[in-house]
Amino acid sequence: MRPSGRAADALRPVTLETDVNKYAEGSCLARFGDTEVLCTATVEQSVPSWLRDSGRGWITAEYGMLPRSTGTRTAREAARGRQSGRTQEIQRLIGRSLRAVADLPAMADMQIRIDCDVIQADGGTRTAAITGAYVALHLALQRVVTLGLLGAVPLTDQVAAVSAGLYRGAPILDLDYDEDSAAEADANFVLTGRGGVVEVQGTAEEKPFSRDQFLALLALAEKGVGELVGLQRRALGLD
Amino acid sequence: MRPSGRAADALRPVTLETDVNKYAEGSCLARFGDTEVLCTATVEQSVPSWLRDSGRGWITAEYGMLPRSTGTRTAREAARGRQSGRTQEIQRLIGRSLRAVADLPAMADMQIRIDCDVIQADGGTRTAAITGAYVALHLALQRVVTLGLLGAVPLTDQVAAVSAGLYRGAPILDLDYDEDSAAEADANFVLTGRGGVVEVQGTAEEKPFSRDQFLALLALAEKGVGELVGLQRRALGLD
Amino acid sequence: MRPSGRAADALRPVTLETDVNKYAEGSCLARFGDTEVLCTATVEQSVPSWLRDSGRGWITAEYGMLPRSTGTRTAREAARGRQSGRTQEIQRLIGRSLRAVADLPAMADMQIRIDCDVIQADGGTRTAAITGAYVALHLALQRVVTLGLLGAVPLTDQVAAVSAGLYRGAPILDLDYDEDSAAEADANFVLTGRGGVVEVQGTAEEKPFSRDQFLALLALAEKGVGELVGLQRRALGLD
Amino acid sequence: MRPSGRAADALRPVTLETDVNKYAEGSCLARFGDTEVLCTATVEQSVPSWLRDSGRGWITAEYGMLPRSTGTRTAREAARGRQSGRTQEIQRLIGRSLRAVADLPAMADMQIRIDCDVIQADGGTRTAAITGAYVALHLALQRVVTLGLLGAVPLTDQVAAVSAGLYRGAPILDLDYDEDSAAEADANFVLTGRGGVVEVQGTAEEKPFSRDQFLALLALAEKGVGELVGLQRRALGLD
Amino acid sequence: MRPSGRAADALRPVTLETDVNKYAEGSCLARFGDTEVLCTATVEQSVPSWLRDSGRGWITAEYGMLPRSTGTRTAREAARGRQSGRTQEIQRLIGRSLRAVADLPAMADMQIRIDCDVIQADGGTRTAAITGAYVALHLALQRVVTLGLLGAVPLTDQVAAVSAGLYRGAPILDLDYDEDSAAEADANFVLTGRGGVVEVQGTAEEKPFSRDQFLALLALAEKGVGELVGLQRRALGLD
Amino acid sequence: MRPSGRAADALRPVTLETDVNKYAEGSCLARFGDTEVLCTATVEQSVPSWLRDSGRGWITAEYGMLPRSTGTRTAREAARGRQSGRTQEIQRLIGRSLRAVADLPAMADMQIRIDCDVIQADGGTRTAAITGAYVALHLALQRVVTLGLLGAVPLTDQVAAVSAGLYRGAPILDLDYDEDSAAEADANFVLTGRGGVVEVQGTAEEKPFSRDQFLALLALAEKGVGELVGLQRRALGLD
Repeated sequence: MRPSGRAADALRPVTLETDVNKYAEGSCLARFGDTEVLCTATVEQSVPSWLRDSGRGWITAEYGMLPRSTGTRTAREAARGRQSGRTQEIQRLIGRSLRAVADLPAMADMQIRIDCDVIQADGGTRTAAITGAYVALHLALQRVVTLGLLGAVPLTDQVAAVSAGLYRGAPILDLDYDEDSAAEADANFVLTGRGGVVEVQGTAEEKPFSRDQFLALLALAEKGVGELVGLQRRALGLD
Repeated sequence: MRPSGRAADALRPVTLETDVNKYAEGSCLARFGDTEVLCTATVEQSVPSWLRDSGRGWITAEYGMLPRSTGTRTAREAARGRQSGRTQEIQRLIGRSLRAVADLPAMADMQIRIDCDVIQADGGTRTAAITGAYVALHLALQRVVTLGLLGAVPLTDQVAAVSAGLYRGAPILDLDYDEDSAAEADANFVLTGRGGVVEVQGTAEEKPFSRDQFLALLALAEKGVGELVGLQRRALGLD
Repeated sequence: MRPSGRAADALRPVTLETDVNKYAEGSCLARFGDTEVLCTATVEQSVPSWLRDSGRGWITAEYGMLPRSTGTRTAREAARGRQSGRTQEIQRLIGRSLRAVADLPAMADMQIRIDCDVIQADGGTRTAAITGAYVALHLALQRVVTLGLLGAVPLTDQVAAVSAGLYRGAPILDLDYDEDSAAEADANFVLTGRGGVVEVQGTAEEKPFSRDQFLALLALAEKGVGELVGLQRRALGLD
Repeated sequence: MRPSGRAADALRPVTLETDVNKYAEGSCLARFGDTEVLCTATVEQSVPSWLRDSGRGWITAEYGMLPRSTGTRTAREAARGRQSGRTQEIQRLIGRSLRAVADLPAMADMQIRIDCDVIQADGGTRTAAITGAYVALHLALQRVVTLGLLGAVPLTDQVAAVSAGLYRGAPILDLDYDEDSAAEADANFVLTGRGGVVEVQGTAEEKPFSRDQFLALLALAEKGVGELVGLQRRALGLD
Repeated sequence: MRPSGRAADALRPVTLETDVNKYAEGSCLARFGDTEVLCTATVEQSVPSWLRDSGRGWITAEYGMLPRSTGTRTAREAARGRQSGRTQEIQRLIGRSLRAVADLPAMADMQIRIDCDVIQADGGTRTAAITGAYVALHLALQRVVTLGLLGAVPLTDQVAAVSAGLYRGAPILDLDYDEDSAAEADANFVLTGRGGVVEVQGTAEEKPFSRDQFLALLALAEKGVGELVGLQRRALGLD
Repeated sequence: MRPSGRAADALRPVTLETDVNKYAEGSCLARFGDTEVLCTATVEQSVPSWLRDSGRGWITAEYGMLPRSTGTRTAREAARGRQSGRTQEIQRLIGRSLRAVADLPAMADMQIRIDCDVIQADGGTRTAAITGAYVALHLALQRVVTLGLLGAVPLTDQVAAVSAGLYRGAPILDLDYDEDSAAEADANFVLTGRGGVVEVQGTAEEKPFSRDQFLALLALAEKGVGELVGLQRRALGLD
């Protein structure tokens, strides 16, 4: 029995609320249980200098946590004057994940900036961020298409993410904070709608795990992402 | 006629939603029209080093804006590595305003950290922040009382804030972004429930204004804050 | 009786010494009693990038305190690696105050940088800075006119500043450091030569003040600024 | 045929030179082909403040690249004033990898600082760093045992790392820079001497990869790490 | 003939004005021609942590330039967020120079902080700073003696500094800015009242100089410092 | 007898190993006894903006120490977020020293970046850095000549550096760390192949030294640099 009482292969209740921001070209509030991440997508008609004249567009992401999104207050990064290593690791992951399903050459001279801000954290903020960011990105690109700036949404697949871990030796899906703190291993999987692997990040917290255990985590994640991409399609009105 | 179509002395629709955060000792989501500020209060059992052994407690505040809270994206302060002058000015103002109605000696060895994060900005973020922060602070202190750490809520009055400005020469209350951009003068008033003045900040945007004009702005603000403190009492269940 | 022994409506001895710097296009050493602020104005033939092609010029200000300008040494901001919130608040105030009396369209493609450095601090450094900065600015613009780069000094009025506060319930003008430390309320007024209000910043230090008290402070400030603009005119040789 | 001409499952020539630094308690220069990483281990008799009185020791790591370790010069992070996201990501990985095979409770009140500095980079610097850092750590702990401060080396297993990737659809082991630049997917595996998984980080560079492809990479990595732990044992004189 | 028209071995007019600051324990405004440096000495009853329990006191220095102390405005270091290499080099030099004539063991548990701020720069700011800092330091230590905290002023000698350089092949003393810009070599000498060498820093600007030229510069400096220590004694009332 | 047992005028064993880096246009590992400094030279086809259109090229240098190059670990400057004053002082010195023997007009539009990274430190890192950096610079310029970008190596002389100091009153050459810690005075001399003085930096550690003592140090340095330029010529294959 896992701490949350959920079945081993059960996601938390997930909602993907769209158009939650008055200004952004695309926005989505992703809730995985008590974890809430506000994702916005901003379209810019310029690319970073190193991409200029490359014929390719770009997608980049930033991540942050509100100070009291956590059980004990986390110091504000703007006040400390630097982003933590964890923050940078996560925002790089979000950017890479989205670029893996984007047709960047079709986005020449366009940059999309994704902002993922954690309003409340209860485990799995990076997976909720990626799952919600895809929705915000898709909405923003739809708007670009509507404006006639692109002929079609330049995305080749959907992408979503979920965690899986080992708790008392058993594989469980989508860990909340209490589960994550007690897990022996924790892995984040970024998978596509068609089942491809975009990113895998697995970490043994206390002792190494085996190849078979890792495969069990991957199987759970494939099930979970399957459900998440369905929720994305519904949020986007694609079904 | 002002741009928003409101009467000159009309506030925007204001809501003060309490207990919006799972972790914070007190929290309030303040909405002034499309402006949304999430305010949390965190209680700490230690004071800044310069206050140690002074027999006084402390209240401090931090302020931030989500990058896409604004019409065009604002660069993330954590990524730039420093808080802007404007941010520092506002967070100092919030802290001073709350301390002015607090009985700091009754809070010895206790510090309350207020975080005001702008989820969406449409003018008046600092006044919404102060108005909501008071509610979050009050809730946090009530919890401290409930826990038996203090005998009574150490607040001597309520405090709320509102803006007023001159638009085409006429005084108007609670400016939204479009009105603020077009105003000849802009003033923020932090007033107490009993009508005292805590802070006054008035700025002529283009040309100086007169003493009489300034008094007209103050009169509008007194009316507006009167309504806001009523909303605070209802949100806190004090009436 | 106020601590300094002055009458309630009396300024400290004020001197505005001009041309105290060998290099600056305009300079003024403003002394308000023991407070000494060195103000220089530097003319540049370029504007910030966001103003380019706008047809307007710009005036900006920076403020600093020498470490031992204060009774106990203040840490050097250059060594700490960031300007304090107070510093940023003051330098933004100085810039806004001067721009309020400038004809910026007449200054197209020109930027004036004002530097206000506190040599010795005894209360009222920001008001001395604004009062002296106006003189430095005027001198620099006169030189620009002399060089034939502008046809007339593009200033629409004079601007000066003074503080007023409540000491033991009574309104007093131009507080020195000891008076400021003991005051119940403190306000800074930036007013023009013709009596307009440019900036008002009032703060209750311990308990809120009333509207009438605030009006009494404004009346004192109007008297004080009246004297200061006279001193400015004499320093500039305008009478 | 891969660019380097190596067999798909062949490591580059690897050497692990020990005691290359006069001062460090343990040191190792790890060479994977033209990649050279200098690893030192420093023993300190104090732990980070958040671990004090926890009865546990700690191992932490820092990573850096000499500016001209790369084909085109990389800006010096000390001069830019901040470590990049990539640097922070790698140094966090090195620390986690080593802690996974350490008996931290046996190291109470002791911290080991690992420094991994890239002298020359030709792909795989993080895997060379982990492989060499284990050797430096082991040497430092042996010295601590020799000094009588610990009864036995508090390591529960060996740990080493290697990369694998997909090049033209085929899995290859231990990519050099040219291979890495051309690969469709890249994964880093941190495995133990007994075959356990400590960290897995797989990234699709251009298009997602499949579960089977991922398993092929893991199989290559298991072979490669098997050889690396043998080299570690020889370098440490353990066989 | 040198640009300033002075004899090759002539100092500029030098004044050392004492007690120019209301708060500092010791202060001196050093003028070398148009170069003006305000030097203050602050006495603290604590030493840096690495000196604690060492039985020694400490003297440290900080240096800064007002933005418009120079012909074209220099960016404010506090605004840029870091002190330049030049600033750090100079403040380290000032500290070392003063410590060389101090009896640090006699100053146990006491630290003197020297601040040298350049009000106006026309070459030789570091030499003026050292020369004036000695006077400020001496005055501060006299005050400490007067207060009975020390039995005698813990200084073993006087120290002063001057520059010398090669201009069109000829050695000249105390270069102003124009001379410095045109010189082939520039050296700064920190010497004691009894003729000892504390610091020598010589730099060939364009082409190397010879040993004999260097000795000629040293001879000029010995003459100049002889005069400066006399002026110091007069300023301190020691003769 | 000096601590190292060397004769007073004896250098440590010095080696200058060339082409130690796969990528740099020029590289040299300079060893002075146990001091090891890796010097690389990078050629860039652009100059700093303030030199553009000046018809002159530029040489600049950066310096760093690996954290465990020292007996006790030195904090990593990249992690602290700023370079120390000592680091900046040394890298400025290296740059000036090399520029003094370069024909910068002949290098128009070209910049050479020198990186000197201390692998192991045992005193004299800045002198080893300058001596090795000259070799790396020469090699890089030779390559530029080979590529036909310049007609001849634009260096007017060789440059090398060595320290000398007073130990128990006696002058000694090329101090190692233990000697440096115990010395009464320490001086660094940067001299050219033809015997010219480029830089002299002498510091009395505890008490001032005399002119004659200084001349004795210079004589030692002339002997030492004579040997070093011979080693440079051999390393470069110039004899």
